[in-house]
Amino acid sequence: MEVAVLGATGYAGCELVRLLCRHPGVEIAFVSSESHAGSSLDLVHPQFYNLFELELQPLRLSAIPESVELVFCALPHGSSAGVVPGLLAAGKRVIDLSADFRLRDPELYEIWYSRTHPVPELLDKAIYGLPEINREAIAGAELVANPGCYPTAALLALAPLAAKGLADWDSVVIDAKSGVSGAGRTPRQPFHFPECTENLKAYRVADHQHTPEIEQCLSHLSGGSVTVTFTPHLVPMARGIFSTVYLRLQRGCTADQLDQLYRDFYGGHPFVRVLPPSRLPETRLVRGGNYCDLGLRFDRRAGRLLVLSVIDNLVKGAAGQAVQNMNIMCGLPEETGLTQPPLC
Amino acid sequence: MEVAVLGATGYAGCELVRLLCRHPGVEIAFVSSESHAGSSLDLVHPQFYNLFELELQPLRLSAIPESVELVFCALPHGSSAGVVPGLLAAGKRVIDLSADFRLRDPELYEIWYSRTHPVPELLDKAIYGLPEINREAIAGAELVANPGCYPTAALLALAPLAAKGLADWDSVVIDAKSGVSGAGRTPRQPFHFPECTENLKAYRVADHQHTPEIEQCLSHLSGGSVTVTFTPHLVPMARGIFSTVYLRLQRGCTADQLDQLYRDFYGGHPFVRVLPPSRLPETRLVRGGNYCDLGLRFDRRAGRLLVLSVIDNLVKGAAGQAVQNMNIMCGLPEETGLTQPPLC
Amino acid sequence: MEVAVLGATGYAGCELVRLLCRHPGVEIAFVSSESHAGSSLDLVHPQFYNLFELELQPLRLSAIPESVELVFCALPHGSSAGVVPGLLAAGKRVIDLSADFRLRDPELYEIWYSRTHPVPELLDKAIYGLPEINREAIAGAELVANPGCYPTAALLALAPLAAKGLADWDSVVIDAKSGVSGAGRTPRQPFHFPECTENLKAYRVADHQHTPEIEQCLSHLSGGSVTVTFTPHLVPMARGIFSTVYLRLQRGCTADQLDQLYRDFYGGHPFVRVLPPSRLPETRLVRGGNYCDLGLRFDRRAGRLLVLSVIDNLVKGAAGQAVQNMNIMCGLPEETGLTQPPLC
Amino acid sequence: MEVAVLGATGYAGCELVRLLCRHPGVEIAFVSSESHAGSSLDLVHPQFYNLFELELQPLRLSAIPESVELVFCALPHGSSAGVVPGLLAAGKRVIDLSADFRLRDPELYEIWYSRTHPVPELLDKAIYGLPEINREAIAGAELVANPGCYPTAALLALAPLAAKGLADWDSVVIDAKSGVSGAGRTPRQPFHFPECTENLKAYRVADHQHTPEIEQCLSHLSGGSVTVTFTPHLVPMARGIFSTVYLRLQRGCTADQLDQLYRDFYGGHPFVRVLPPSRLPETRLVRGGNYCDLGLRFDRRAGRLLVLSVIDNLVKGAAGQAVQNMNIMCGLPEETGLTQPPLC
Repeated sequence: MEVAVLGATGYAGCELVRLLCRHPGVEIAFVSSESHAGSSLDLVHPQFYNLFELELQPLRLSAIPESVELVFCALPHGSSAGVVPGLLAAGKRVIDLSADFRLRDPELYEIWYSRTHPVPELLDKAIYGLPEINREAIAGAELVANPGCYPTAALLALAPLAAKGLADWDSVVIDAKSGVSGAGRTPRQPFHFPECTENLKAYRVADHQHTPEIEQCLSHLSGGSVTVTFTPHLVPMARGIFSTVYLRLQRGCTADQLDQLYRDFYGGHPFVRVLPPSRLPETRLVRGGNYCDLGLRFDRRAGRLLVLSVIDNLVKGAAGQAVQNMNIMCGLPEETGLTQPPLC
Repeated sequence: MEVAVLGATGYAGCELVRLLCRHPGVEIAFVSSESHAGSSLDLVHPQFYNLFELELQPLRLSAIPESVELVFCALPHGSSAGVVPGLLAAGKRVIDLSADFRLRDPELYEIWYSRTHPVPELLDKAIYGLPEINREAIAGAELVANPGCYPTAALLALAPLAAKGLADWDSVVIDAKSGVSGAGRTPRQPFHFPECTENLKAYRVADHQHTPEIEQCLSHLSGGSVTVTFTPHLVPMARGIFSTVYLRLQRGCTADQLDQLYRDFYGGHPFVRVLPPSRLPETRLVRGGNYCDLGLRFDRRAGRLLVLSVIDNLVKGAAGQAVQNMNIMCGLPEETGLTQPPLC
Repeated sequence: MEVAVLGATGYAGCELVRLLCRHPGVEIAFVSSESHAGSSLDLVHPQFYNLFELELQPLRLSAIPESVELVFCALPHGSSAGVVPGLLAAGKRVIDLSADFRLRDPELYEIWYSRTHPVPELLDKAIYGLPEINREAIAGAELVANPGCYPTAALLALAPLAAKGLADWDSVVIDAKSGVSGAGRTPRQPFHFPECTENLKAYRVADHQHTPEIEQCLSHLSGGSVTVTFTPHLVPMARGIFSTVYLRLQRGCTADQLDQLYRDFYGGHPFVRVLPPSRLPETRLVRGGNYCDLGLRFDRRAGRLLVLSVIDNLVKGAAGQAVQNMNIMCGLPEETGLTQPPLC
Repeated sequence: MEVAVLGATGYAGCELVRLLCRHPGVEIAFVSSESHAGSSLDLVHPQFYNLFELELQPLRLSAIPESVELVFCALPHGSSAGVVPGLLAAGKRVIDLSADFRLRDPELYEIWYSRTHPVPELLDKAIYGLPEINREAIAGAELVANPGCYPTAALLALAPLAAKGLADWDSVVIDAKSGVSGAGRTPRQPFHFPECTENLKAYRVADHQHTPEIEQCLSHLSGGSVTVTFTPHLVPMARGIFSTVYLRLQRGCTADQLDQLYRDFYGGHPFVRVLPPSRLPETRLVRGGNYCDLGLRFDRRAGRLLVLSVIDNLVKGAAGQAVQNMNIMCGLPEETGLTQPPLC
């Protein structure tokens, strides 16, 4: 099957190329880049020298070969919404890595992304691409909205509790820590090496655009209206998200019961690893891999449950999850092309 | 005034030497080290070559010169308690950087430090050395228990709320992130560079020994019995603690009122910087300095207040605070020797 | 084909498992560890949880299944020499990642490794496993001495010049920079995170044990007796070696001629990438991959050539090269299991 | 004495403020910034909040108070040359941290900086501000050209040999490694955190503009015409330069003799620390301090001497050296305001 990657020079796009260029079921037939059209991909990302050297094209829909069946949109928020309708009209299936089709309510989009959604009529068509929750719908989707990195980590931590009605939602605090690649590839002052190394900071406190995405999915799963406190932090490392989720339970529950609940919920989902009780997740243990590791701990003194989750923000938090979605959409085994162990 | 530093080769001891060797009011007359007795300090910490080269002594009380009036104990937990009684008996004033004299209740000490306190009768005598709360008592103290690094950051974030009865204590979550120097100078697997760099993890979840120290002080300030959830994380940087504190307030409060409350509480305390509402703290902005920067943010949607606090764990979280305490004990201006700006 | 990995918990052993557990031509049938015998590999290296969980065995030759045809020895220097004779006697082919069989002259071994070689009679049998130089001999070898990380980077930079007699050997300076994983997995003071991060230092100046290994191979290739200056430095990163090689040429040569010489020499060697003249190597561009990137630059003013080479010390500098050697020994395509692009 | 800092928001300017705002002999009366004129310095560099909050002025000479006696120019190369003549005409003494007045030959400036020098007549007036070589001339200077960071480290390594005619200049190779702050504060792709961390690379190989500055000073000291090979590398750390200098000596020399030569040469120069033979320099050991640490090693096998030197590029390599020059110019003790130990 032939695929295209739009926005191939950003970090998510580049990671898509890394995963797809060795994927046994697909061939990358088209890569686009606005900023580097005309060069070869390996000029921008020299790790691909001799390995994958396709020429970067400007983004014109007519230039995408007809033979391309599926398109990965790794464009900036806002740009995707301008391109996806044309892709669908041309009969391509689309996996969109931007935020443009994640929120079902166009008003929410307008509030959090400060722009009016240009094609609100497509929002119903988009399937939220978190396979551990939506696998069946993804299989038949024409348009998959690939989840954000923070929502992926937070939702996989909370989904089993949401599905079972176990969480006291008023109590939920999500304290998330991300590596700097999550901020994208464009150089800016806060991500300039000397101001990032040996530094930790919070940003967009109580104001991050991934908040409604998390709440929408939890509300859906729990059947209620969920509001959470979500705080992102910037950590001096390139990759990785660590989410520390705090909450109270609706009713008593033993550690064993919870452990079993999580194992049952994620049974058959190869990329979620519920860790044994003696272990805790670390971001390096999933680096480069498509895994989400989960750890559970009770704070018995304070009556709180902690769920710790880690992902590689560029893999399970972006490109890897997109490939997982593609596998599901195309009837391939879900792990195809995604089995390499993390690189520690 | 002559002072001694016991345990001068650990990170806190070394930082004491850095601050004291240029302090205009004191002279370091004695430095001890169990592991490196007989060498010169600059052999262990070569940054002091040509600058401060005193010979490291084995730890015998009789070897401490009589002229030494004040002793900094930067020994491991447990060792301090064995030494402090003798120091006091010899008429020295003591600032102890270990945890041995921080908890007033010997049973708590036994629970959290897994050993029986050898001199519980001294606990009443020890003054908890957080100057922003205890300045007057510190001034007259014979024995100051210098606070832990995590408690310093957490308590300075919460003290104004505790003093005013504003916090809903059941709601308090303290998510703390620390640089690796907090783990001490002894090489161990989790702190081996290749396993630490590009990694983030939580540790001692719901089980860290600084928890009761935080609770004791908050209980004292608020007049109640406070239990908190406290989670430490390890960040790939050498120095710095970032505390993200989540809580609900007991009663409504505007952002301006809270800001004023913090400014009033810390007025006259030169080392706590309540940031303007437009700014958020970052660990690098206090590196090497004795400052604690505080930022306040409301999550209006979820009805929570966030207090963000940063310190350099080795300065305001250990050696700098100890020097601040010494200044207070000796009637020197509180900032003496501690005015150099952070090193960004 | 079944293989064994002895010393599977060190960094090289762990990296062997990462590469071999997804290698289509082999099955790991046995893993040993002295320090962790009895646990499962994923307890020591939790990235393998759910992915590869073989139990670690103590190292007894009799315990290695007869069905194992090839053994990777990733044991400490000195230990390998005690084990390899037995493995060969049992009819196994061996790839030894230690230094024990790299030097052909047992006296050199004694000088640089401070121990008498226990089985000097095996040294003639061992093939130096740098495939770009020794591919044919490797194919038929019973015992391959896998090169050191520094020698791999230095030799690939210099081999074409050595083979063509172009280098003025008296002028050769090799200034090498390595990530900290090169120092192994055992925690020690110089590799403790707080003393490693934000630091650069040289070590074993004019005294590093990889020097004679480099000289032996260059002497062999050039037909003379080569002595070089080699200086290793420690860089605050986990992986990667960067070698900056300085030399004068024996005779005039254009940049084009040199470029062509390198391209000819490495034609047909998939893992050496001679970069286009406009580019320079960077360690991150080969991270996790088995590539050696080479860049050439003239300093025309000073009359010197610079050859810059980078590898991932754990892949092309250890485990990846070992797998490449195995592929050659077993008649598999040389790139089998080693084609994943670097992880940037 | 009142001083001004032009370009106070770049890294060198900011470091000047850090050192000068606590310097007992001066008061900062004026700070300029083109990009942030109108804000307070602490808005750009929040570490100064509450500590030093002067308003940043646009750069107009007439705005500099008459009471300012000495001006630090920390402007970009090219901008300084446009400002310095006016400052001198106004009777100010000037320490220029740019490269504009370092090269005495305007043709060299044109070749390496790709612009014609606008005021070549001032070049004779400028004193090269390396105090360990030029202390007397600096004392009386109106205009000091503060050395570049790389030249400072390289020249202090080589000056004693140059002065004694001991170096075989044809053999000199300077392999230098720098932290990222050396690239300045403007965000650019190669210094974006995710592309810098865990990476090592060379840049401007055989083409760096500090080369002629090094050669000019060595030529002057040795009385000949020196050409060197100089290669800079970028290291994933914020601060620090490590220079590994390789050379052959003109004549035999024992290690003791060399050690004595260096100690004699730097006797009375408090900021150069010739390390004992058993030690080697590390960048962290001078971080934040104005020291240059030197280590000497013979490679007896290859007949080469290695001189290893480290500095903090922003202190001894820029702002600290500028303050040292100011002290000399003003008749203050050379160490005034520069005595704080490095921050490890």
